[in-house]
Amino acid sequence: MKVVRTCAEMIEISKFYIKQNLRLGFAPTMGCLHDGHLSLLEHLNRRCDARVASIFVNPKQFCPGEDFERYPRDEERDLKLLKKNCDYVFIPYEKEMYPKGFSTSVEVSGLSDTLCGKKRMGHFKGVTTVVARLFGIVRPTFAAFGQKDYQQFVIIKKMTQDLSFGIQLIMCPTVREKDGLAMSSRNMYLSSEERARALSLRKALLTAKKEIEIGQTKAENLKKTMLKVMNNLGAKAEYAEIVDTENLQTVDPIHGEVLLAVAAYVGKTRLIDNEILRCKEL
Amino acid sequence: MKVVRTCAEMIEISKFYIKQNLRLGFAPTMGCLHDGHLSLLEHLNRRCDARVASIFVNPKQFCPGEDFERYPRDEERDLKLLKKNCDYVFIPYEKEMYPKGFSTSVEVSGLSDTLCGKKRMGHFKGVTTVVARLFGIVRPTFAAFGQKDYQQFVIIKKMTQDLSFGIQLIMCPTVREKDGLAMSSRNMYLSSEERARALSLRKALLTAKKEIEIGQTKAENLKKTMLKVMNNLGAKAEYAEIVDTENLQTVDPIHGEVLLAVAAYVGKTRLIDNEILRCKEL
Repeated sequence: MKVVRTCAEMIEISKFYIKQNLRLGFAPTMGCLHDGHLSLLEHLNRRCDARVASIFVNPKQFCPGEDFERYPRDEERDLKLLKKNCDYVFIPYEKEMYPKGFSTSVEVSGLSDTLCGKKRMGHFKGVTTVVARLFGIVRPTFAAFGQKDYQQFVIIKKMTQDLSFGIQLIMCPTVREKDGLAMSSRNMYLSSEERARALSLRKALLTAKKEIEIGQTKAENLKKTMLKVMNNLGAKAEYAEIVDTENLQTVDPIHGEVLLAVAAYVGKTRLIDNEILRCKEL
Repeated sequence: MKVVRTCAEMIEISKFYIKQNLRLGFAPTMGCLHDGHLSLLEHLNRRCDARVASIFVNPKQFCPGEDFERYPRDEERDLKLLKKNCDYVFIPYEKEMYPKGFSTSVEVSGLSDTLCGKKRMGHFKGVTTVVARLFGIVRPTFAAFGQKDYQQFVIIKKMTQDLSFGIQLIMCPTVREKDGLAMSSRNMYLSSEERARALSLRKALLTAKKEIEIGQTKAENLKKTMLKVMNNLGAKAEYAEIVDTENLQTVDPIHGEVLLAVAAYVGKTRLIDNEILRCKEL
């Protein structure tokens, strides 16, 4: 595995693969890797000739007051984890990603305004801007993202189509701890007591899923259920929503393919989780 | 010359050239072609294996109240002019460029806020969005733009660098009518009487240039001169500015490489022109 620190070198590597019509697979990350990240590389391995992971804690996608400063960084550990799973790891310095005078932004309206976008103002604009730049530098054939960040995936997919980047996006299933907690770099923040309470997000989703299976179709009721479960089990719910998987707009009564999505604080740590459900037509 | 109407077909053509490591040159236009456009293709011809011109009157770059509806369109004439100067002409339908659900925008801050950007709110955001999409579809090695739209060029160059599109941009000199009027599709709007008054923009620039040559360095004075010349010769000046050629910020006293830029209405027609000057160091 080769460690790449500059955009210029990454672009040269990418050109090498393009010239030979070889397929590069790409997994952008913010480091502090876990099995969820490694599964992205596993999914890419089946489709690509070589794999690139990037590690960059992108300041543009943190809102004021969020955890940019304390976001966990452990390059040495990350490199060890990637060693056998990856051909190139792109770890740019901030001045490589945002050189002096950088002033372009990419934004997806509509999809960025719901769910996490309501509270995290500017978050998705930061994500689409950095991913557009990374896509330009790495020029992969495939790029993989996790389902845990479902809204992020839908937004990046829309951007990729609208700007005709010609990159195939792969959404990989959420990887979970044994007890069901969705893997996230932010789980590191949790004390052991908070770690137990963090399960409330998953519990809320599964409770709603069960209610749907026995006939509940009213999104409003299901949302109330999910909020109640989270709040009762020691989380501070930010939202619980049931939305169309494509346009992320509320669906009520629920039908077709829907996303159950929740966000909640456990202590100071903001967590998210979701489930995709194909409703039986009424 | 092949006429291409769909994005899918244009992408296939582009892939063909990329796979063979051949260089595509690209000149995006809004049609109603003149010698300025043809000179872009001439400049590309020296550098590329094949040339693509696009014709698309982009609604996103017209502000409310501007001339989108009456903007001149003459496809038959355009195709005749391109015939010997171009290998592919990409003329997408609006629903090809902006399919249902299109919701991405690309914006360059700072550079878009001065000169024409002050009055034409959202204009450059419309330009960068459509050019980003066109670049994604055509994937050229080179793209050519005219110096007449200098601010547009600087903004597109910034976007191309920031998003690492890997496209080399070429700025081609403004092509002028015999009497010095900068060629523009909008010159068509001018009555013969207005056509004479339209020369006031060029006259303003040349007057300022002369004053600089005999020692004037105060931008404020030079701006006043340019505004006076335009208004005295029958145009209604919108602005006259002297700015740094890179960051488009006012330079006063003038030094280094500067852009003299003017915009004015002649009747209902908004015209622009500019001159680049390398000042002798004081």
